[in-house]
Amino acid sequence: MKSTKSTEIAQLGEFGLIERLTSRLGKRNETTLVASGDDAAVIEIGDEVLLMTTDMMTEGIDFDLSYFPLKHLGYKVIVRGVNDILAMNAKPQQVTVALGVSSKISVEVLDALYEGMELAAAELGVDIVGGDTTASMNGLVITISAVGRAKREEVVYRSGAREHDLICITSNLGAAYMGLHLLEREKRVLKDVDNPQPKFEGYEYLLERYLKPRARMNVLKALADEGIRPTSMIDLSDGLASDLRQICNASKCGARIYLERIPIARQTSELAEEMHIDPVIAALNGGEDHEFLFTVPLDMREKVAALGLVDIIGHITREEAGVILVTPDGEGIALKAQAFDR
Amino acid sequence: MKSTKSTEIAQLGEFGLIERLTSRLGKRNETTLVASGDDAAVIEIGDEVLLMTTDMMTEGIDFDLSYFPLKHLGYKVIVRGVNDILAMNAKPQQVTVALGVSSKISVEVLDALYEGMELAAAELGVDIVGGDTTASMNGLVITISAVGRAKREEVVYRSGAREHDLICITSNLGAAYMGLHLLEREKRVLKDVDNPQPKFEGYEYLLERYLKPRARMNVLKALADEGIRPTSMIDLSDGLASDLRQICNASKCGARIYLERIPIARQTSELAEEMHIDPVIAALNGGEDHEFLFTVPLDMREKVAALGLVDIIGHITREEAGVILVTPDGEGIALKAQAFDR
Repeated sequence: MKSTKSTEIAQLGEFGLIERLTSRLGKRNETTLVASGDDAAVIEIGDEVLLMTTDMMTEGIDFDLSYFPLKHLGYKVIVRGVNDILAMNAKPQQVTVALGVSSKISVEVLDALYEGMELAAAELGVDIVGGDTTASMNGLVITISAVGRAKREEVVYRSGAREHDLICITSNLGAAYMGLHLLEREKRVLKDVDNPQPKFEGYEYLLERYLKPRARMNVLKALADEGIRPTSMIDLSDGLASDLRQICNASKCGARIYLERIPIARQTSELAEEMHIDPVIAALNGGEDHEFLFTVPLDMREKVAALGLVDIIGHITREEAGVILVTPDGEGIALKAQAFDR
Repeated sequence: MKSTKSTEIAQLGEFGLIERLTSRLGKRNETTLVASGDDAAVIEIGDEVLLMTTDMMTEGIDFDLSYFPLKHLGYKVIVRGVNDILAMNAKPQQVTVALGVSSKISVEVLDALYEGMELAAAELGVDIVGGDTTASMNGLVITISAVGRAKREEVVYRSGAREHDLICITSNLGAAYMGLHLLEREKRVLKDVDNPQPKFEGYEYLLERYLKPRARMNVLKALADEGIRPTSMIDLSDGLASDLRQICNASKCGARIYLERIPIARQTSELAEEMHIDPVIAALNGGEDHEFLFTVPLDMREKVAALGLVDIIGHITREEAGVILVTPDGEGIALKAQAFDR
């Protein structure tokens, strides 16, 4: 007899869902400068601002413990949390960790997880300042919350891109996506084999990009050292197509990116071909690259190019022009987030 | 052929596990004043300090959706997150929410969850400033992370209790525990019944204490208005016995609490008798009371009593004296956390 309306989450999509859930939230504190809608919330603390973000990963969806070493997983969750702070052009400082742990998880497994977390924390200069451990009926769940700080005028939002700005990325794309596909393939192939020996030769780079992504602090530091302030920035977690659209939506602009300028590693192309996947799809829509996508003013072109650390893949246009991928023969394809939804 | 050592988490217990995992964590930021070991981390922000905490709840362990209304659950998770900030004598300001959502959860269910979260946020004066939504293979998972702030000298730690201090609590104990038992009983009894009509008459207070605990901001405000600063404080989440031991461990002291002074609501005693549970066990060890346990200097006795909001249940002793429950006939029973472990 239940007549309650029931809408599946898939009908809204993740962004639609978040929009719906957050639209009704009120604001009671003057210190809350920016709540939802960017990589992190922005909170006033005296002369500076605090950036705050949270990220959950669940077993079976975001990682598969049958091939994801716990130490790498610990490393990766810290990078993911910290990257959202870096993407606001802020200095990450503290993180907390909440763990949901099923009974099959041993203390030694958590030791390895923490070892990886501490390794990443040390490399990135952040402190793990506490957390919570609870039981979980089914599988491991990890939530990282991170805070960092910046001078108020130094914060870079998704909304700052302007017409003619250059669109930049910090490394090649699609490698993590192909690393995941390789791990999934070997798991499938070897599932009934005793003493399985997965074939990873020649594709180690892809595995590393998926299992142990690096936070590109060095690139952000190099930009700062050269006096180059991005006008907008985002952590590339959902794939170039989706994340570029986030910047364009927030900045009320369009974009043109050029297919032949999107860097794709040789291993990515090779494995993609072997597995009958279009490497361009991997690069545009793969996700989990954890590189930074950012924009800089046009007059920074030479300075940015001189760094040798960044690829310029296109430029910002007026909103009416849409978000366009230009193929080598000059054809323009509208990048609709929908069309590339996994 | 695996010879890797495997230790079950139960062998260490939650506190032992956290101790083991956090003992190896380094510190890289001068702004990290206190990491693990209290209700929240303490981070320097200019003249003030930031308090930061995180709390995870998982379906099937921390809540059962077959009888936990989503709106209440949303309310409760905010109270839990905020209480850890309040327990440091700080002003909670912002929270983030990370959700792991299984496919059986509808958008309307999340609407109700957010409605409850926003209700609690409005009452407690905090802003929900963002979050993360991910899929979950198995059940709903919610992590709340909260930040608040205080003047550095106003922060109250678990470690500040001193000999002769009075031990205080903000309301009666064990009610949430009995509320949970009532819900579980009715679920068991009615599991094969069509159109079940659970019997809750006379026990509504217990349900409310379990399903919708209130954060006792009013009591903390009254203390502050009277110039009463607690010397130590903790959120009563694991039960009086365990949480009092936390204060004693951190403060390197002992305690004597008096059985007849521990307030137990009439409904709690009645249902406990009906269900053949010792109401004292419910009060000492029930958990999820979400009241505050705190200590004040002896010379504050009259001021505290005059508030009419707080029960004084005992006093702090030297460490060698142990943590003792005194029965009405004067017998002293050592409160070992272990002995009351659920």
